[in-house]
Amino acid sequence: MIQMDEKTVSSEMIYDGRVLHVFKDNILLPNGEPSIREYVKHVGAVCILPLTDEGEVILERQYRYPFHEVLIEIPAGKLDGPDEDPRAAALRELREETGAVPRELHYLGDFLGSPAIMGERIRMFFARGLVFENQKLDEDEFLEVFRMPFDDLIAEILAGNIPDGKTQAAALRVAALLAKEKQQ
Amino acid sequence: MIQMDEKTVSSEMIYDGRVLHVFKDNILLPNGEPSIREYVKHVGAVCILPLTDEGEVILERQYRYPFHEVLIEIPAGKLDGPDEDPRAAALRELREETGAVPRELHYLGDFLGSPAIMGERIRMFFARGLVFENQKLDEDEFLEVFRMPFDDLIAEILAGNIPDGKTQAAALRVAALLAKEKQQ
Repeated sequence: MIQMDEKTVSSEMIYDGRVLHVFKDNILLPNGEPSIREYVKHVGAVCILPLTDEGEVILERQYRYPFHEVLIEIPAGKLDGPDEDPRAAALRELREETGAVPRELHYLGDFLGSPAIMGERIRMFFARGLVFENQKLDEDEFLEVFRMPFDDLIAEILAGNIPDGKTQAAALRVAALLAKEKQQ
Repeated sequence: MIQMDEKTVSSEMIYDGRVLHVFKDNILLPNGEPSIREYVKHVGAVCILPLTDEGEVILERQYRYPFHEVLIEIPAGKLDGPDEDPRAAALRELREETGAVPRELHYLGDFLGSPAIMGERIRMFFARGLVFENQKLDEDEFLEVFRMPFDDLIAEILAGNIPDGKTQAAALRVAALLAKEKQQ
C-alpha cells in the first residue's frame, strides 16, 4: 500500500454551533506539501431497523431541512456523549421515537455517510422481537411513525424511492441476513 | 400525514470554505415556534460501482481525514457545478480516478449520507463493459486503485469491514440487480 497518511500541523475551530462543530486543520499531505482539511466533528450516532413479528419495519417520516423534503428513514439519533454505549443509545432512541423495546438487538456494522468532510460514525442495529410502550419524543421532534412490510421497503429502495443512505444500507444488510437464516 | 414543513425566516452564511459551506437559518417549526437549523450546503456528487467483465469491482483506498483512517470506497466525486449532468460527472470521475470507460452506465438512485445536517445528494451509478485508458488524478489526490471480486466485496460489507455508506448502498443494490438478471 502506498503512503497515504496526512499529518495534522494545527487545528482551528471555525464554528461551534448547536449541532454543527466545524474545524479547519493545516495538514501535510503524504508528499510533504502543506494543505488544509475542513470537516465537521460529530459525537457519533446510531440507527436501528426495527422489524415486528408480523414482518413490518417501523419507519419515520421527517422533514429534513437541508433538502426541504420529508424523508422516510429508520429510527436514528445521536449518542448522548462520546462515552455512551452505542447499544444503550440504540435502545433509548428506539424507545423514545417509536415506543418499541426489542428482545433481540444485533449490531450490523458502521456507516460513514460522507467520510471526506463529516466525522459522523453511525452504528447500525437490527432490532426484533418488539414489544411496545409509549413514544417519548423530544419537544422539537416532529416525526410521524408508520409501518411498512419489509419486502415493500426493499422494493422501494431498489426502485430508488428511499434516498436516505443509512436506511438503504441497514435494510439491504438485514435482507441478506434474513435470506441467510432462511437457507439454514 | 401530519404537517411537518419548516419555514425559513432568514439564512446566514457562517463559513464559506474551500469545500465546506456552512449555514445557520432561523426557521419556524410546524407548530409556529422559532428554532434554528445549522447545515452544510453541497453542490452534489456522484459515485460509481465499476464492474469488470471478470466480475471484479474497481475500488479505491483513500485517507479520510475526519476519521484518520484509510477507507475502501467505490470511485466518487463532486459535481463540477450545480448544472453538471450527473451522468457526465460519473463518466469523468471514473475516467480520472481509475482510467475506466464504461459501455453501460445505469443510474441506481440517490444517496443522502446525513440528511439532517448535510445537503449532499450523491447520485449512484453502476458501470460495466469497461475499457481502460490512463488514470488522471488531481495533484492533491492520493489514492490507490485496486480490484476485488464482487462477491468478496459483498462478503466484506456483510462482515462489517467496509464502513463507507455509499459503497455499501451501491454494492448491495447492484447485488440485487445482478440476482434479478440471473433469474430472468
